[in-house]
Amino acid sequence: MNDMIESGMHRISEAALNELASSALTAYGMPQVDAVDAAGVLVLADMFGIHTHGVSRIASYGERLDLGGINRTPNIEVMQAAPGLVMIDGDNGVGTLIGARALDAVMKAARETGIAAGFVRGSNHFGPIIPYGWRAAEAGFASIIASNATTTIAPTGGRDARLGNNPMAFAMPNPGGMPIILDMALSVVARAKIRDARDRGEAIPDTWATDRDGFPTTDPAAALDGILLPIGGYKGYGLSVMVDLFAGMLSGAAFLTGVKSWVDSPGEPQNLGHFFILIDTSRLALAADLASRMAAFAAIIHATPPADPQRPVMLAGENELRNLTRSRADGILLPAKLVESLKKKAAGR
Amino acid sequence: MNDMIESGMHRISEAALNELASSALTAYGMPQVDAVDAAGVLVLADMFGIHTHGVSRIASYGERLDLGGINRTPNIEVMQAAPGLVMIDGDNGVGTLIGARALDAVMKAARETGIAAGFVRGSNHFGPIIPYGWRAAEAGFASIIASNATTTIAPTGGRDARLGNNPMAFAMPNPGGMPIILDMALSVVARAKIRDARDRGEAIPDTWATDRDGFPTTDPAAALDGILLPIGGYKGYGLSVMVDLFAGMLSGAAFLTGVKSWVDSPGEPQNLGHFFILIDTSRLALAADLASRMAAFAAIIHATPPADPQRPVMLAGENELRNLTRSRADGILLPAKLVESLKKKAAGR
Repeated sequence: MNDMIESGMHRISEAALNELASSALTAYGMPQVDAVDAAGVLVLADMFGIHTHGVSRIASYGERLDLGGINRTPNIEVMQAAPGLVMIDGDNGVGTLIGARALDAVMKAARETGIAAGFVRGSNHFGPIIPYGWRAAEAGFASIIASNATTTIAPTGGRDARLGNNPMAFAMPNPGGMPIILDMALSVVARAKIRDARDRGEAIPDTWATDRDGFPTTDPAAALDGILLPIGGYKGYGLSVMVDLFAGMLSGAAFLTGVKSWVDSPGEPQNLGHFFILIDTSRLALAADLASRMAAFAAIIHATPPADPQRPVMLAGENELRNLTRSRADGILLPAKLVESLKKKAAGR
Repeated sequence: MNDMIESGMHRISEAALNELASSALTAYGMPQVDAVDAAGVLVLADMFGIHTHGVSRIASYGERLDLGGINRTPNIEVMQAAPGLVMIDGDNGVGTLIGARALDAVMKAARETGIAAGFVRGSNHFGPIIPYGWRAAEAGFASIIASNATTTIAPTGGRDARLGNNPMAFAMPNPGGMPIILDMALSVVARAKIRDARDRGEAIPDTWATDRDGFPTTDPAAALDGILLPIGGYKGYGLSVMVDLFAGMLSGAAFLTGVKSWVDSPGEPQNLGHFFILIDTSRLALAADLASRMAAFAAIIHATPPADPQRPVMLAGENELRNLTRSRADGILLPAKLVESLKKKAAGR
């Protein structure tokens, strides 16, 4: 364990991290029961290895809770609009709390009708989507889940950011093994990857972003001042529009340039929107064959001859699901500084 | 009209083209009522300007109808698996017939529950998706519709085509104006675009496809022997997997390499799968605001400063919807040879 101490890392169990993260959120003024739900999504993110979207976010959630930009004690309303349609008003609470509650409400509706959708308004940063998709898959639901976000992408042919890098996820349960989960944003790369290049003093490919005038650039600093490029040109632009239409426009949330910036307006409600579509695979005609069909599907993909013999072909989510298994067995490795700061906050409650 | 005759084009009304196309399909042995439904989707494709997926396909459908690769008289079964879940077995009929019938069944279910999904197996070439998305939007449904397809794409890191260029579409109704409809395949470009480059003797960008060994190529002939590249690398690969899981795996259809090639096995059933998810927007909490919210959404996008002042920013489907309006007013412009060949076939029934 010496190497961990030397490298400034700390290993912590799932239970301990949940306790720590929820205590820190409670110290920011959230009721205990809400803090537990909000923390659960963030801890899962860390267990999946997505540390950029895990408990490291609590400090920025806390900043907004302190400023009033997020409501500490939201009254989350769940309204059944039709047997399969649920409208959720998050009352500007923490996004992962609202997301977790919305997921539960949509799963309940989908058990009745076989499929249900939830449309969420009045929310904030959703966290990563893979925890929601994974929970749904564990309960037997195939899912499509997405969120809108602060504007960082320009429409194709435009030179002004009017769309978010809207994350979307698809997940398919697998009764006989690992689910398949795709969780992706719609830009070619995340802004974090451009920041990393800047910090390392490296140029970036000119397909990642434009400068502030809308011209492709290889300069990471100019790109950070500019606009992210979506995957596949007009296709990624179109997907971003569609996520915002389903998550923002249909839900009653803000959309496009109406979404407040997390960074620039920390004291104002973002009014983010999310949507969930869940299908109860146990109700489908082939429910009994699902395990064998998923196994056959995965086998065909895994048997693809790899371009590099050292790198076998993988399915979406495989790395993350292996991280989850490892995190459960060995605990979660986090920067010691992060754990210390959460402990300090939790103790001050 | 002289220029049209000189350029070998023929203008035909929607009603006349529907009559002609359904008569041709009837001449291949389809019952009249089925031929009308199958033709309707193809005629709409031509009206949207997507002539590669319109009535020009009837000859290849006919070839397979003649060979027994498609069932002339399918018994399309619609099974209600749950209030919001419909399973459709197309009995290897013409894909556009099965698609049209499936759409009707799913719309009916979604009227009851607010949202419904349809999973189709035993189908063939689906045609373009925009006609289905548009019909759903006209009836007030937001939709996600997709199909699997013959393998043309390799998994990321692989050098063998194991996935189709699976088309997916999202459509959002607009009570006050044009719906927004995104209909896209998951490759960077369609094979037809590579064929065009080859026919013109031009090189292609190395991001479009690999050669048969899995290496990116600028030679269109090598690319046509090789494998299409998906949008956004692993993201497009993941989307293709997800479409196949929902359209092929969940429906009970063939998936991945199990889908028979349209070209190589014209005498065998393809067993293609499709899926439809329809949301009745009239049931949502904000139904009364849908027109104003859609108008506000479109206005923000259209007001984006364009990179090229001559080319204003557009929304997905705008060109196609304008073509539809024009086709309705002025008729549909088709190659005279195509119209002649359909007339000849129809007369021989």
